[in-house]
Amino acid sequence: MAELDAYITKNEERFLEDLKGWLRIPSISTLPEHTSDVQQAAEFAVGQLKSIGFEQVEAIATQGHPLVYGEWLKAPGKPTLLVYGHYDVQPVDPVELWDTPPFEPTVRSGNIYCRGACDDKGQTMLVFKALESLMAVDGKLPVNVKVLIEGEEEAGGESIEHYVRTMPERLGCDAAFICDTHMPGPETPALISGLRGIIYTEVEVHGARRDLHSGTYGGIAPNPLHALAIIISKLKDEQGHIHIPGLYNKLRPAAQVEKDFWQNDPLNFAENLREEMGVEQLAGEPEHPPLERISARPTFEVHGIAGGFTGEGAKTVIPAQATAKISLRLPPDLKSQECFTLFEKAVQEAAPEDVKVIVRNVHGGEGLVVELDNPAIVAAATALKEVYGKEPVYLREGGSIPVAALFNEILNVPVVLMGFGLPDDNLHAPNEKYSLSQFYKGIRTVARFLQNLA
Amino acid sequence: MAELDAYITKNEERFLEDLKGWLRIPSISTLPEHTSDVQQAAEFAVGQLKSIGFEQVEAIATQGHPLVYGEWLKAPGKPTLLVYGHYDVQPVDPVELWDTPPFEPTVRSGNIYCRGACDDKGQTMLVFKALESLMAVDGKLPVNVKVLIEGEEEAGGESIEHYVRTMPERLGCDAAFICDTHMPGPETPALISGLRGIIYTEVEVHGARRDLHSGTYGGIAPNPLHALAIIISKLKDEQGHIHIPGLYNKLRPAAQVEKDFWQNDPLNFAENLREEMGVEQLAGEPEHPPLERISARPTFEVHGIAGGFTGEGAKTVIPAQATAKISLRLPPDLKSQECFTLFEKAVQEAAPEDVKVIVRNVHGGEGLVVELDNPAIVAAATALKEVYGKEPVYLREGGSIPVAALFNEILNVPVVLMGFGLPDDNLHAPNEKYSLSQFYKGIRTVARFLQNLA
Repeated sequence: MAELDAYITKNEERFLEDLKGWLRIPSISTLPEHTSDVQQAAEFAVGQLKSIGFEQVEAIATQGHPLVYGEWLKAPGKPTLLVYGHYDVQPVDPVELWDTPPFEPTVRSGNIYCRGACDDKGQTMLVFKALESLMAVDGKLPVNVKVLIEGEEEAGGESIEHYVRTMPERLGCDAAFICDTHMPGPETPALISGLRGIIYTEVEVHGARRDLHSGTYGGIAPNPLHALAIIISKLKDEQGHIHIPGLYNKLRPAAQVEKDFWQNDPLNFAENLREEMGVEQLAGEPEHPPLERISARPTFEVHGIAGGFTGEGAKTVIPAQATAKISLRLPPDLKSQECFTLFEKAVQEAAPEDVKVIVRNVHGGEGLVVELDNPAIVAAATALKEVYGKEPVYLREGGSIPVAALFNEILNVPVVLMGFGLPDDNLHAPNEKYSLSQFYKGIRTVARFLQNLA
Repeated sequence: MAELDAYITKNEERFLEDLKGWLRIPSISTLPEHTSDVQQAAEFAVGQLKSIGFEQVEAIATQGHPLVYGEWLKAPGKPTLLVYGHYDVQPVDPVELWDTPPFEPTVRSGNIYCRGACDDKGQTMLVFKALESLMAVDGKLPVNVKVLIEGEEEAGGESIEHYVRTMPERLGCDAAFICDTHMPGPETPALISGLRGIIYTEVEVHGARRDLHSGTYGGIAPNPLHALAIIISKLKDEQGHIHIPGLYNKLRPAAQVEKDFWQNDPLNFAENLREEMGVEQLAGEPEHPPLERISARPTFEVHGIAGGFTGEGAKTVIPAQATAKISLRLPPDLKSQECFTLFEKAVQEAAPEDVKVIVRNVHGGEGLVVELDNPAIVAAATALKEVYGKEPVYLREGGSIPVAALFNEILNVPVVLMGFGLPDDNLHAPNEKYSLSQFYKGIRTVARFLQNLA
């Protein structure tokens, strides 16, 4: 144990340099112009796994971006852990709000700033470095490990879903481990007990066959932007209630312990989030506590509206077409395909008669509830206590990790969701960062987790 | 008369070449990167006026883009006509929908395609060519003429407003003539009997201090895009009624003859516009006839909504801020500043409590009602009858030409609104065009108009 710690301490600087090298590759999976960068980021992961001593290491070609696979299966009689991460990142706009270039990793005040610093290159790299450290110190790993890294987490994750569904034998394991989540604060280790699913949609509204001048046609022309405003305001009201018939019907009732936690908010999450957002009051359903709203209630968010003129100055165009990007977060038991059907129906019913509407299901993923008494969760909880000095809290995360539900469903294994992000890491926003202290503690925690699992 | 016609016929090709030269200059007044193009388009107009034989010709520097002035005052005892046009044009996006490059004038099927082909370089150029033809044939003009051309019509027109208000003596005249309007069809000459005013606004909504991830914050984060949907849907309902308290109070009652015209729609405008738009039904207030809706009712149009993510793929961002561009068209007697105050108040009252809203008045202009029995209107009507072989119809135009109200108010003169655009000229849209036949007939009509005015 002391030897392991010493190895990690001695190699911290090199671990960070390896992370920087990965971060410099702008592997934005949703932008076609970055396809070769995404490929390069996959090759980087291949190199990491090979240098640790993994076997069968390969970048697996898919319909989209490659998957990276590797395995080390030389611990007979020991459990097998499937490790997941992703090497693709979010787009960077608005780029002008970054204090340093989004793909130039920069260390300031104990944090590394870069797109992907946390989500998920930083969190994936710490798993690589835990594996490397165990292998370097002991010449072997305490358990069997399979690693599967994807490059489409920010782009729908279709390839990994296809792969898991078609290759369940190759991925067979006793537990899965996903390092892509947060802790409430640097002193508060956490394990995730549930995740929301998601549907991400596009609502495309068509009016006239071409853009029109509002002076000539204003008063008789359908306006797709106005129609979207009508649709959106009908589907979600000012108090945050979602008006999609049937959506709330299947909501799993919360356990009393969860209700108490949400109501009491012992870690003062709600107030901290309010301060961090810089707002006077929180939005959303007033009859539900804030913690419930961010973790266990369905959400409806508009992410962008395209169409018409948004440049400098004035253009009096009535656009022929406008498109809104809208997602719903779905607590466990709200199935994504079923909710998309309800959503589509509600959109069509809310649409003004003078426009035509197309609703697209861009991607979807299921939520998850984790059983807390299985050995893998216990091993992770123990590791967190060893490194952080206190018991972890168990949280439902509001975000969606569709692959967690996928592993659970297809491989039929418990899923350990243990991550080291912090609430102010600016995921999907300008100035994404990762705490270096969390990075190094994460390496230690993951190494212990594998030892405990053995 | 025959000599004038012959001169015009003989020079048609050169007239078109001159127009093409002007059209090639991308004088987009709202985009700072086109500032020098706008300047160049002003110099082009200076050259035209000088070559006709105008005096005092100059590009007048302003806070924004230059005004072009010239005069010919050698017809003692005759009326003085102030001629207005504009040399600036609208932006060209979405540029991919243009069949030929937006600033490469291209003749197809009797039309010239280019941004500005109609609005308003084509219509201004035909006035130049009418003046040139009169001068060339007679060695003089039949009336005194002052020409004032602006470069900010698509950008608020602040400079010309300032100039007219401060230099009313220099611009003193007996009538003003604006060539920036349409005819209902190539066989239906028209004069405009009224114009709507406008306010063009930006509604900027602020939520959290930075962009947020909807997985982590969805349920408690204010969403400025959702707030805009709420505001917009509260201010204008699905039936096209505008809910801005006080807005309809001052609406001028329509004359019975107007009501009859709107109701009977003898030229079948509404059906033609519906077909042109390619829609199954017209939008807007069902209790008002379509013609009234496009010409004499206030409108409320959303032109664009910026904020969040609208690129390819999926980004689950809750934006910190979003901005809608919204304009209101204002029938005569609805004053722009007064209506902006009502609008701003209504927006603030409609805004959800969890966001902050800033409402900006980008620009405004007043509407106008034209008295049809004044000599300038009669001279124009006679000219149209001479060239087109039939009496013109008198229309209220739905668009806004703030300078018309300005001339009326400050110079205290009748304003002749006679233009040769057609409804399918694609103003402010891709593939803007101008009919060559209208261009040449326009030259003849304007020349006759000046002769009749004498």
